[in-house]
Amino acid sequence: MKQWIYGRNTIRELISNHKRIDDLVFLKGNRNDDLMELAKKNKIQYRVTDNRKYFSEKAGKGNHQGVLALTDGYDYTPLNDILSSIPKDKQPLLLMLDGLEDPHNLGAILRTCDATEVDGVIIGKNRSVGLTPTVAKVSTGAIDYIPVAQVTNLSRTLDKLKEEGYWAVACENEEAQDYRQVDYNMPTVLVIGSEGYGISHNVKKHCDINVILPMAGHVTSLNASVATAVLLYQVYNSRHPL
Amino acid sequence: MKQWIYGRNTIRELISNHKRIDDLVFLKGNRNDDLMELAKKNKIQYRVTDNRKYFSEKAGKGNHQGVLALTDGYDYTPLNDILSSIPKDKQPLLLMLDGLEDPHNLGAILRTCDATEVDGVIIGKNRSVGLTPTVAKVSTGAIDYIPVAQVTNLSRTLDKLKEEGYWAVACENEEAQDYRQVDYNMPTVLVIGSEGYGISHNVKKHCDINVILPMAGHVTSLNASVATAVLLYQVYNSRHPL
Repeated sequence: MKQWIYGRNTIRELISNHKRIDDLVFLKGNRNDDLMELAKKNKIQYRVTDNRKYFSEKAGKGNHQGVLALTDGYDYTPLNDILSSIPKDKQPLLLMLDGLEDPHNLGAILRTCDATEVDGVIIGKNRSVGLTPTVAKVSTGAIDYIPVAQVTNLSRTLDKLKEEGYWAVACENEEAQDYRQVDYNMPTVLVIGSEGYGISHNVKKHCDINVILPMAGHVTSLNASVATAVLLYQVYNSRHPL
Repeated sequence: MKQWIYGRNTIRELISNHKRIDDLVFLKGNRNDDLMELAKKNKIQYRVTDNRKYFSEKAGKGNHQGVLALTDGYDYTPLNDILSSIPKDKQPLLLMLDGLEDPHNLGAILRTCDATEVDGVIIGKNRSVGLTPTVAKVSTGAIDYIPVAQVTNLSRTLDKLKEEGYWAVACENEEAQDYRQVDYNMPTVLVIGSEGYGISHNVKKHCDINVILPMAGHVTSLNASVATAVLLYQVYNSRHPL
């Protein structure tokens, strides 16, 4: 299915990766000369308009930054395909998101996943944000590199992964240790809960280790994409120490 | 100036901190029984309505989660007041945001600042997001704890801070070292650039050290609140090793 995608970074990635673009539109007066140059260099036709309304129709509430492209939609990947495509010499790393609702968070998380060697993301079919144009925009192209599996039952998926040798590490306050105490040099599935309610009771029961981030102040939790990033960089640090 | 504030976590903080609330409204059918209990316990009157339109009027595009409160607006703090209020026995830590535009990023960053012992945030007067209700909501109450200074000239402010013994550490790719190589046990002002354009040329020239996060994949930058969080937790780790 064709979708309108928008935002400077997303479209720069689309062009740079020679993705099929059916229509590329710039809004007059925005600072996008660099992208027009890049389109020219890649022999992609574009048009310029001063029809601001056209942009808000296509991008909805999103911050389009004066550039739109019509392109193919985003697909999910079966979990088995993700698992079998992990290189044999790589320590596997998966991220499970339990009930994440905010497309900005999912987009930012995909971006971090690309930077920290995550092999794939697992989300539930219910009550979770999926792969929408906003997610694509916020991910600045990472959505093209990080496969996302949608599964019916997160707890059962955790059990299956544990049978295959994965350790399930939950970002969860109860009976938790400091996230820096764990050596993540093991096949790891990191489990992150939803913005308002954390990890659901059932999923929690299937995790092996709980970790917390130190919180020196008054608020009791971090933004979901922020907490995920600090943990993923800690995994990266475990696996690639200085 | 009175403002409508919304979101479960923000309002929980308001109530828990005995902030003055002039009106507290719940939307019927949302899962907010816990907050109503908390309001009762704190002797704050509330009303329940099924007028969904009233909520979207007050919260705009924000995700209100079925709870609204009318309360006092948010003020900036003069930089000198921030500096003089840092305890003598604490290693100072400031965060300068150069041109940050997205209220979600600022809110998430304030939340992380509260968790990582940041003494204050500095933003420019031009082209930067300020302290809006969306920022307050996303900060889940951290806006009440982290003072924010608005200054006219970021470069001159950096010079002033350097005269007072601060080191300016920029999150910036050029001539940068791995962020884990720096010992942040020094008075530090961490400088973060805008979402689309990074740190401006003038501000860059006034920084002492450039650091980067390793990026193993294809995308070339992280979300601003994510990068800030990984760096702030590294500062925390420098100062409070395991």
